[in-house]
Amino acid sequence: MTSLLKNIYSPQDLQNLSLKQLESLAGEIRERIINTVAVTGGHLAPNLGVVELTLALHRVFNSAVDRIIWDVGHQSYVHKLLTGRQARFATLRQYGGISGFPKPEESIHDAFATGHSSTSISAALGMALARDLNGEQYSVVAVIGDGSMTGGMAFEAMNHAGHLKTNIIVVLNDNEMSIAPNVGALSGYLSRLRTDPKYSKGKDEIAELLQKFPHGNKLLKVVDRLKDSLKYLVVPGMLFEELGFTYLGPVDGHDIKAMITMLQQARAVSGPVMVHVLTRKGKGYQPAEENPDRFHGVGPFDVSTGAVKKSGGAPSYTEVFGKTLVKLAKEDNKIIGITAAMPSGTGLNAFAREFPKRYFDVGIAEQHAVTMAAGMAMAGYRPVAAIYSTFLQRAYDQVLHDVCLQNLPVTFALDRGGLVGDDGPTHHGVFDIAYLRHIPNIVIMSPKDENELQHMLKTAVNHSGPVAVRYPRGQGVGVPMDEEMQRLPIGKGEVLREGNDILLIAIGNMVSEAMKAAEKLSVQGIEAAVINARYVKPLDEELILDYAGRIKNVITIEEHVLMGGFGSAVVELLEATGQTDIKVKRIGLPDEFVEHGKQDILRANYGLTAEGIIETVLAWGKDVKKVRKLKAIRARG
Amino acid sequence: MTSLLKNIYSPQDLQNLSLKQLESLAGEIRERIINTVAVTGGHLAPNLGVVELTLALHRVFNSAVDRIIWDVGHQSYVHKLLTGRQARFATLRQYGGISGFPKPEESIHDAFATGHSSTSISAALGMALARDLNGEQYSVVAVIGDGSMTGGMAFEAMNHAGHLKTNIIVVLNDNEMSIAPNVGALSGYLSRLRTDPKYSKGKDEIAELLQKFPHGNKLLKVVDRLKDSLKYLVVPGMLFEELGFTYLGPVDGHDIKAMITMLQQARAVSGPVMVHVLTRKGKGYQPAEENPDRFHGVGPFDVSTGAVKKSGGAPSYTEVFGKTLVKLAKEDNKIIGITAAMPSGTGLNAFAREFPKRYFDVGIAEQHAVTMAAGMAMAGYRPVAAIYSTFLQRAYDQVLHDVCLQNLPVTFALDRGGLVGDDGPTHHGVFDIAYLRHIPNIVIMSPKDENELQHMLKTAVNHSGPVAVRYPRGQGVGVPMDEEMQRLPIGKGEVLREGNDILLIAIGNMVSEAMKAAEKLSVQGIEAAVINARYVKPLDEELILDYAGRIKNVITIEEHVLMGGFGSAVVELLEATGQTDIKVKRIGLPDEFVEHGKQDILRANYGLTAEGIIETVLAWGKDVKKVRKLKAIRARG
Repeated sequence: MTSLLKNIYSPQDLQNLSLKQLESLAGEIRERIINTVAVTGGHLAPNLGVVELTLALHRVFNSAVDRIIWDVGHQSYVHKLLTGRQARFATLRQYGGISGFPKPEESIHDAFATGHSSTSISAALGMALARDLNGEQYSVVAVIGDGSMTGGMAFEAMNHAGHLKTNIIVVLNDNEMSIAPNVGALSGYLSRLRTDPKYSKGKDEIAELLQKFPHGNKLLKVVDRLKDSLKYLVVPGMLFEELGFTYLGPVDGHDIKAMITMLQQARAVSGPVMVHVLTRKGKGYQPAEENPDRFHGVGPFDVSTGAVKKSGGAPSYTEVFGKTLVKLAKEDNKIIGITAAMPSGTGLNAFAREFPKRYFDVGIAEQHAVTMAAGMAMAGYRPVAAIYSTFLQRAYDQVLHDVCLQNLPVTFALDRGGLVGDDGPTHHGVFDIAYLRHIPNIVIMSPKDENELQHMLKTAVNHSGPVAVRYPRGQGVGVPMDEEMQRLPIGKGEVLREGNDILLIAIGNMVSEAMKAAEKLSVQGIEAAVINARYVKPLDEELILDYAGRIKNVITIEEHVLMGGFGSAVVELLEATGQTDIKVKRIGLPDEFVEHGKQDILRANYGLTAEGIIETVLAWGKDVKKVRKLKAIRARG
Repeated sequence: MTSLLKNIYSPQDLQNLSLKQLESLAGEIRERIINTVAVTGGHLAPNLGVVELTLALHRVFNSAVDRIIWDVGHQSYVHKLLTGRQARFATLRQYGGISGFPKPEESIHDAFATGHSSTSISAALGMALARDLNGEQYSVVAVIGDGSMTGGMAFEAMNHAGHLKTNIIVVLNDNEMSIAPNVGALSGYLSRLRTDPKYSKGKDEIAELLQKFPHGNKLLKVVDRLKDSLKYLVVPGMLFEELGFTYLGPVDGHDIKAMITMLQQARAVSGPVMVHVLTRKGKGYQPAEENPDRFHGVGPFDVSTGAVKKSGGAPSYTEVFGKTLVKLAKEDNKIIGITAAMPSGTGLNAFAREFPKRYFDVGIAEQHAVTMAAGMAMAGYRPVAAIYSTFLQRAYDQVLHDVCLQNLPVTFALDRGGLVGDDGPTHHGVFDIAYLRHIPNIVIMSPKDENELQHMLKTAVNHSGPVAVRYPRGQGVGVPMDEEMQRLPIGKGEVLREGNDILLIAIGNMVSEAMKAAEKLSVQGIEAAVINARYVKPLDEELILDYAGRIKNVITIEEHVLMGGFGSAVVELLEATGQTDIKVKRIGLPDEFVEHGKQDILRANYGLTAEGIIETVLAWGKDVKKVRKLKAIRARG
């Protein structure tokens, strides 16, 4: 068998393939994706689920003109293989390589950048309206999972699209999952559409029923008057129909021919149309079909066995969070665990097993998660909302308006604070300090290691107001874990190292880098004091003013944007107290979106390592030496 | 007729009233609200619409135990009158008086603070789940308008509630309006439920139909198999039923008896229930019934004529924005106007009249508004999303992830930036600089007066990336308007006054206060230079470094929280360039939520006035004098 895939340079090359060839091609694509992701890691199961769907879409639509918007975007690998990025496919998610998400800079076939959930219908509607204003004719297609449909903005967009009657195609990729199996009433509805023949076959049966009424039958009049109501019987997907969409489906998402036919129908429909496609996550790779959750986003794995390569070493912050929350919940029956569709990603699955009644997966619905937590806190509970830093962006208003304004004791477990690595700019959690710090009443802490994380969690759930605990993606530092959890005093940092030449104030995972830098600097004769700030808010003003006032040369270090970040808080403090004779240098991320790539590479690029800190200190060399000389003279009297 | 209202000290006092007395009471309440709001201003029409509904709610539920959550909350005046706040009702929205929104600190009858839209079902669900965990029995009721239902988080909450089957009552207050008439497919659906007898009477008729089938009839088998589908016929409100809610209604929201009956039914239902109540905004006051939009939120007015008292003087920033956008749109057919259900509040109604095809009201759906704008910008348009500062909080993630990450030319017209006055802490737009400044690619500008606003808008819609233009609530400064709009250079401020003793760097509406302060200081022999920063981002680094480097004493002034704000940007700049010999004092809002009250009172409280600036300068007196003396000595050689 010859390779079909290698001759696909653009989607146009699909047009001449027979159905049989398309099916063969699907197999080749699966193989390529499995073999590539086994090396690079990535979103395996979602992509295996949309192979046929993507082929059908590219067969029916011309993505150089028509616009296809991939909601969330991590299911765009097949699309990338078909749109001129086959040669670079091995660089997937690698630094300098192609992104794991749609990116308009990469290709004209990527209509819109995605990463967060539930944006596609809004973006598609915007493009469709622009098209109409231009008097153009192309199709605009949003491809959205049933999980993403639980995000409120997808509903906002459907409500608006259904009202406007603009031509727009929404392909509902229904695999009955977000990352974990879906929750929500909508999911139940879809599953009825999917499985209950009465829902999907009602159309034929009612037609039959109506034919059996003889003309002039008294009942016919009743039926006639009920005509509009009868739509409910004759049209499946009435929920979408009521929102102004034409519903087509459900169709088997692994039957290319059936999908081509249905997408062609959809293209011909006037107004918004929803095509309900049934797919299976992980399709065609047994380990992924059996464990779609584990193979949703996966690190390198062994293709033959499906065994994920273990990284070994220290436990991840996520694991420590999960275990600690279980311990805390055993002590305190008011603790609640909340996730927005990410039980395993957040480490809450352990809590879910142990305390099923106190565990809530709300779907991909961060806004609702936060305000629901506020409601629980108002009623005396201690909810812990475990939401990645980048996804809590979706609930900024709810954190401010529903939790902090009422000073409610909700804990935000902000996993993936900092650079997340391969997922890139849509997912880096590098804005959280800046978007939270200015909100009154909130306490923001970040642990220097996994042991401090457990103490901080204990502190957080015992605090009388809102707390955000920010910790990074990946393994802990590898320190021993204390048996007993301790409450840390709010707003107090700690001095880890004394030194008179320079003061390093670090937060979170940058503390260990600062310590390493200090040890190496000492060899060069520069003695750095190191403060583990612990708290971004309230800042340990006393400690910082004491040390900064004596040492005068201060470097702040954070894995976060510099604007409005932790260093900014230190600078604000020094200004507010009139400490103008102190030099401060802030290390952090510049004012730009950070690309994708391994965390280590990115950290090195931005000086967020011991070496980077040393370089910064040495670049300050002249001043530091001057200070040391002055101090030496003063000390001698 | 005796006054019933004056004897209502708590909702318990309603229990002994006859239906007739409740109806009389409704009249008294209307009168009190009309007469009070005519003096204080406030949300008149929404409250007049819910008089009977509120009475029925308090008759059926005991809000000391049961929890009633008012979505948006501006319709809680009737509730406040019934729950012990009658004596203080004249202080409504006044500084130190009772809030125009529910506030748990005010009363145990206020279950949850609201202000922004669409939060009530989430909060109610959180409370209901807490109740269930506690094994308690009380009712939890969310009262939400059909407008608020267009906000995505309401859907997220319904989807979750319908899945959990928790006992919760959602009262859908359907008045067919947000502030303006509602848009959206859901609104069309509700209107069908409301008006089409086939929708609401289907139940009886199908029952009749079924009875006419003799037993054993062949058709009966078909019908039997269709039983589940027939729910569509027998149950109105199927859209809500499909989401797991029991639908009751529609019921006339001005018929107390009917509502009491239906709410009692709702209380007895197991699982989530939706009570569809039809109300009329402005009910009982003719001017408000005729113009519910104008009387939604209203300033003081004449009760007999309904004439709103004109403030006179300079045009408001909102008006200038509206007129300018029309002018710009005449020059550039790519300009689009977008509002989230606030055409008149944002001033977009003028644009809507002039360019109906380029105008989009998306409903109360800020998230969708922003991402739809991103889609339009991607397709070559220049969308202007006019969203109040406080409401754009809802779309923080979309601004970052959909607009700024792709560097798309969307203009955010941020009206109500700064203290909004009477609406209080849920509505002050005092966080926008902090939540936007750290986002890469965005340009943030704020005009010193209404004339500069038009130039900034011209600049914004011609810029190649995202721009936020922030301007305050209320009247402009009263300057003459230039005939021609000009594009201002990006990132350039202007020097308005020279002076060597102190440098005032102000942004937005604080520029005119800084100028007044400078003139008065001059009388006292202190010469202040004044810079109108114009841009928060990019900051005019050259100008600021030049002046700050020479003058050394710098005061920054902004109507915004200090943390992460404009002054913080200035301090970051000085730190980044190693300017440690410059003293900076930042004037702005402290780290707390600001209460409600007239803008002038609040500004004076926080020193955001010429007088406040002068005080700050004089408190610095010693230093300033020292500097002056040194300079004088230096100047003399």
